[in-house]
Amino acid sequence: MNAETPSDSDHGQSAAPSGEPQGGVSRRAVIGWAGAGVALGAAAAGSVAAATLRDSDPAPAAGASVDIPFYSDHQSGIATPVQDRLHFAAFDVTTTSRDALVKMLKEWTKAAAVMTGGREVGAGATGLAEAPPDDTGEALGLPSSRLTLTVGFGPTLFEKSGPDGTTVDRFGLKAKRPEALIDLPKFPHDNLDLARSGGDLCVQACADDPQVAVHAIRNLARIGMGVVNVRWSQLGFGKTSSTTPEAQTPRNLMGFKDGTHNISGSDADALGKHVWVNPGEGPEWMTGGSYLVARRIRMHIETWDRTSLKEQEDVFGRTKREGAPYGKQQERDTPDLKAMPEDSHVRLAHPDSNDGLMILRRGFSFTDGTDGLGRLEAGLFFLAYQRDTRKAFVPLQQRLAGSDKLNEYIQHVGSAHFACPPGIRKPGEWWGQALFG
Amino acid sequence: MNAETPSDSDHGQSAAPSGEPQGGVSRRAVIGWAGAGVALGAAAAGSVAAATLRDSDPAPAAGASVDIPFYSDHQSGIATPVQDRLHFAAFDVTTTSRDALVKMLKEWTKAAAVMTGGREVGAGATGLAEAPPDDTGEALGLPSSRLTLTVGFGPTLFEKSGPDGTTVDRFGLKAKRPEALIDLPKFPHDNLDLARSGGDLCVQACADDPQVAVHAIRNLARIGMGVVNVRWSQLGFGKTSSTTPEAQTPRNLMGFKDGTHNISGSDADALGKHVWVNPGEGPEWMTGGSYLVARRIRMHIETWDRTSLKEQEDVFGRTKREGAPYGKQQERDTPDLKAMPEDSHVRLAHPDSNDGLMILRRGFSFTDGTDGLGRLEAGLFFLAYQRDTRKAFVPLQQRLAGSDKLNEYIQHVGSAHFACPPGIRKPGEWWGQALFG
Repeated sequence: MNAETPSDSDHGQSAAPSGEPQGGVSRRAVIGWAGAGVALGAAAAGSVAAATLRDSDPAPAAGASVDIPFYSDHQSGIATPVQDRLHFAAFDVTTTSRDALVKMLKEWTKAAAVMTGGREVGAGATGLAEAPPDDTGEALGLPSSRLTLTVGFGPTLFEKSGPDGTTVDRFGLKAKRPEALIDLPKFPHDNLDLARSGGDLCVQACADDPQVAVHAIRNLARIGMGVVNVRWSQLGFGKTSSTTPEAQTPRNLMGFKDGTHNISGSDADALGKHVWVNPGEGPEWMTGGSYLVARRIRMHIETWDRTSLKEQEDVFGRTKREGAPYGKQQERDTPDLKAMPEDSHVRLAHPDSNDGLMILRRGFSFTDGTDGLGRLEAGLFFLAYQRDTRKAFVPLQQRLAGSDKLNEYIQHVGSAHFACPPGIRKPGEWWGQALFG
Repeated sequence: MNAETPSDSDHGQSAAPSGEPQGGVSRRAVIGWAGAGVALGAAAAGSVAAATLRDSDPAPAAGASVDIPFYSDHQSGIATPVQDRLHFAAFDVTTTSRDALVKMLKEWTKAAAVMTGGREVGAGATGLAEAPPDDTGEALGLPSSRLTLTVGFGPTLFEKSGPDGTTVDRFGLKAKRPEALIDLPKFPHDNLDLARSGGDLCVQACADDPQVAVHAIRNLARIGMGVVNVRWSQLGFGKTSSTTPEAQTPRNLMGFKDGTHNISGSDADALGKHVWVNPGEGPEWMTGGSYLVARRIRMHIETWDRTSLKEQEDVFGRTKREGAPYGKQQERDTPDLKAMPEDSHVRLAHPDSNDGLMILRRGFSFTDGTDGLGRLEAGLFFLAYQRDTRKAFVPLQQRLAGSDKLNEYIQHVGSAHFACPPGIRKPGEWWGQALFG
């Protein structure tokens, strides 16, 4: 099974498959679709007992892909340079057994360490013929693709309204609920689909290859069978914000550059000030963690596309092509907020209009086909991390929902809030250990 | 607006953005997200009057991306090496005006030529401030990403059942309907959602970047406003078949390699025998064209994931890890069909079991979130091209739907059939010219 087949020898970085256009640099040709999952994954694998190498694939070319370290003080997937694709899942806990939930969180952590290293879950996609494979197999031969898995705990994990209106403390966690993990208020214009909102747990899977992100969520859901159910999930195909502000700013589905002044993932001062929870701020288990707000924002694409360029630029307060703030020439020129319409998105959302308030945005564009009226079901899956939601997303969104000119063209249709604990520092630790321990 | 900004100078191929993992080769770092849309697009642009270069972005590094030629004898997107991502849209024609439909097809063709060259539609994302931009802008700065746009005409374009049960010849095309463009029969186990089936027209957009594919469909839909409506659309994130059989075979969401013995896009003999319509086979306007069958195939993922490895391998008649046919060692070893279970998928679908019958497969995996029961809404969006559907997909699917062991784990939930005309040979020609002309 480990042999280099004649066909395999065609797949290295240097040899683009014939039939590919000459000089074409597709993702496959460059990273070698043929499984860069071995050597680099192995480099980080030593400490993880459950690791199984994908051993049927040839070694990759050097530098083909680099895994994002799983073990660190903060969870990866927050300050990490934003990957190209997203699969986000919110889960309902269906068991009433605290032990079963803890057992699953331990297994999730182990599987996450393995998958973010580009390796297979458990005994892999093969094993006992009589048993289902431990790993569903569709990522076999693919590198980790910078996969990160970020976990969060929703308000309903701590206390949930029972059928009679009283709150139920299912897992004895009520006293540990952070004050910052509020039930988000209803904002003006919200039109939330409750089936696409909330959740007891969430996992954000980001990777440069969607197959890798989908594989990770699916295998976690599978491990969680009988303990959790997927409540809703969202695939994101194009990042709309960057945590590497020195790189090209991506465009959202309105065609505008978004997140020019996002927090940089390498700016420790800004992260400490705006993103990571400090000691003493709420329960100790959240120190080093962050609060995540997820909002599914539908764009009225067809209406937007019939809107004049001037109106579009007025909505943002930036030019469309260059992304320059009104009255300036270049995207990164310091905005002159007074030169923008008072209800423009950038003016309202800018830190200078909000006492220096900043959130770390990590959103993705989505397109989920077409709705019943033939309109593109598309928009922005907004993800934002912050130190205290009450002092960040909530006042900002109150302001935007009240006045933002953009509201004519968007609608918030899904909403969720999660407390993301700090990182896993070493093998043996598990997601939620300080919360449940 | 055309200046190289200080920030732009950070984006070339040689300079990975700081904050990216060292040695990481993300798609962005390699092709330079910062707009490889200019120079290479321009190389092929000369003949297209409507072309507007994306002039705000710096020139890309040489060889950063290569456009797939739009002008050719056959439509691109069929034999073309399969790209990484798909956005497929089926349209209903809402006008009764043949002239309006012809005008739109001419505009579509012009826009397709421009977009597949990595350029902007019409006057681009800027223009008159008082008018909506001609191009929606979200692909600004992105290379063509090997975008192909492939058009097809559905049975209902030629004749449609009216409310009283009689057929209506809306556009005077009834006499030109190819006999091969049948209404597909109902197959055993079909559970079709009519809202996700059929369509008067289709456009298959394939590209290595989903934002480019989504942009293309959206801009065509926009051009078609008042003439066509999107009936349904499907995003595909991972190709499941390859038309470059010498390259690594991709895996489907069941974790198996699929399409090992697909028709090679560079095998002119096989394409002539199985894919392209020959002169004299039906109406002349289809000579050089091909018939496309699209099937949305939902996988019962959760059931599959609880199935033993042996059962999974029996279903396919191949090993999971290597993809070797039963009784053989390597994926590409010639299958011994008698060594496989009689109802295995590979045995039933193999050309040797079907008098040499072959279809060119171009399917993609999809994940559209979660259904109401918390199950992953995922599967295979099957796309197959053939010379005559009556002699290819229909008998093959009759056989598979009747006996295939795979049927326990899948369900066909969407279906469509289209006649894809030959390619556009030079500027000035338009999609459907020989049909409407």
